[in-house]
Amino acid sequence: MKKIINDPANVVDEMVQGLVRSYPDYLTRIDGTEAVYRTDIAKIKGKVGIVSGGGSGHEPTHAGFVGQGMLSAAVCGEVFTSPTPDQIFEAIKKVDSGAGVFLVIKNYSGDVMNFEMAKDMADMENIKVKSIVVDDDIAVENSTYTQGRRGVAGTLFMHKVLGSAADQGASLDEIEALAQKVLPNIKTIAVALSGATVPEVGKPGFTLADDEIEYGVGIHGEPGYRREKLQKSKDLVEELVGKLNEEFKFADGDHYAVLVNGMGATPLMEEYIFMNDVLNKLASLKVKVDFTKVGNLMTSLDMAGVSLTLFKLDSDELLDRLNYKVDTIAW
Amino acid sequence: MKKIINDPANVVDEMVQGLVRSYPDYLTRIDGTEAVYRTDIAKIKGKVGIVSGGGSGHEPTHAGFVGQGMLSAAVCGEVFTSPTPDQIFEAIKKVDSGAGVFLVIKNYSGDVMNFEMAKDMADMENIKVKSIVVDDDIAVENSTYTQGRRGVAGTLFMHKVLGSAADQGASLDEIEALAQKVLPNIKTIAVALSGATVPEVGKPGFTLADDEIEYGVGIHGEPGYRREKLQKSKDLVEELVGKLNEEFKFADGDHYAVLVNGMGATPLMEEYIFMNDVLNKLASLKVKVDFTKVGNLMTSLDMAGVSLTLFKLDSDELLDRLNYKVDTIAW
Repeated sequence: MKKIINDPANVVDEMVQGLVRSYPDYLTRIDGTEAVYRTDIAKIKGKVGIVSGGGSGHEPTHAGFVGQGMLSAAVCGEVFTSPTPDQIFEAIKKVDSGAGVFLVIKNYSGDVMNFEMAKDMADMENIKVKSIVVDDDIAVENSTYTQGRRGVAGTLFMHKVLGSAADQGASLDEIEALAQKVLPNIKTIAVALSGATVPEVGKPGFTLADDEIEYGVGIHGEPGYRREKLQKSKDLVEELVGKLNEEFKFADGDHYAVLVNGMGATPLMEEYIFMNDVLNKLASLKVKVDFTKVGNLMTSLDMAGVSLTLFKLDSDELLDRLNYKVDTIAW
Repeated sequence: MKKIINDPANVVDEMVQGLVRSYPDYLTRIDGTEAVYRTDIAKIKGKVGIVSGGGSGHEPTHAGFVGQGMLSAAVCGEVFTSPTPDQIFEAIKKVDSGAGVFLVIKNYSGDVMNFEMAKDMADMENIKVKSIVVDDDIAVENSTYTQGRRGVAGTLFMHKVLGSAADQGASLDEIEALAQKVLPNIKTIAVALSGATVPEVGKPGFTLADDEIEYGVGIHGEPGYRREKLQKSKDLVEELVGKLNEEFKFADGDHYAVLVNGMGATPLMEEYIFMNDVLNKLASLKVKVDFTKVGNLMTSLDMAGVSLTLFKLDSDELLDRLNYKVDTIAW
């Protein structure tokens, strides 16, 4: 294992420390936790707080999206491990100013359980909490850590949409309705070129041959649905857009947002080339693309690969929400 | 070689295409070139244009920093290869609106020669052009492609400072004076954990043993000054800050900006841990840190490693310029 760290057992604590010291105007750590909240938290007074989080190792997710117009707080678990209910509860208490708190949970059994427990703890203190479980990864049903489908990079579109609504003063019920409306519109699928190495494990979670890729891998290295020889970018696009089409059943004139997300070790150059092929393919299918984003936004440590998220924009409101101005360190 | 590409000979063209299609509101391609300019170019009317560029493979540098408050245009060469004088000249013509154009050149022999030729071409058409050659890498004197010291990630601080001045309407002479004042204040040094693979070459430019690092490597894989076994983050910091101290000779109460830049394949988690150690070390030396930035900003394809840039802030103006609001896809 070749990593710039000190002690594998202490990576999250030191990472959070580095993060809040690098961006003190954006992020403040909740003492005694690995949760961070908006330094300008006073600005959300009277508004719904949006809280997300999950295992670490997906940086800049989630802390990089804390700020005006997106998340109010992010809870960082140990690497690839759900944060504890008490830390999630601390984040909920920190961002509640009476209007309640909405939780965006990625669909992993540990996250769902711990966020639900934190919600129960909040209920007992009369803090109104609602939530959504994002399960955008269409690759497989059930997985190593998941019942149903996994929650992956499409979750960022959920953060973006709900964050704008909260910033504009939407109520907790309105945010819940928006989340439920948006959820079936967001779908993601990935391809991996290499596995990720968790510091405390010291070796990759899976290995691929020099010329091999795996379709449908999850952001913790969970198995996908097929291994084969490395293809050209446009052939990868053919496969992944094909899978998404099976879900969405594209119709002439449909409008979509597209996110090409790097898994950590893949250079931006490759992500732009891949996006170019995605846009070519979608154009050939007469799908209209109104919003595009490319970058290493929900990573899997040092995994190489990309994920492709499509978000069906079935109202102008959704596009406006994607274009809504935010102030975070990573969006 | 495991890359998401189509044809190794065509990666830059397809990358630029993907880039401008992903961010049409920010970037427009100059027809027939691999140069991009601000889509809102009308906004710089009467102001000095700032142009930078160089070999591709360093994304998001330089195109990612084109936008209000930073660069007016960026010229993308082939991978690790200087852009041609005619393409640089096209960018100069595109962004000149009478106030002249300032070129920010990283110190590589090919870049210096080609940007100077483009300047001569502009002179012949009576476009006022001035320039600065950034040579912030303190690791070695002279290198594979360089006379003197190499230009690396500290160049981004130059873009940031000059971009804000241009946005505020500074004259070409004022921008030149500012560039010359800032140049000796910016110094960088890197450590690599692995080499980068140029698509047309197909194998890494250098290789390191599983437990080996190299100090002082350049952004094209140029040799550094020492190889040794992988150290802990805080020991890497000890070495790199020590080298920077030999240059700056830190004095109690000095103010600095700090950039921790990932080389491409290094996860943000490690960069934040490294930054945490840098801030600890600088605090122990009684150096004041007023500005911090962490991210994969000037990469070297899929190289693993980080660079550390210090920028001595010897006036309040420089800090204000770093904090000046910009609108780009990557700052």
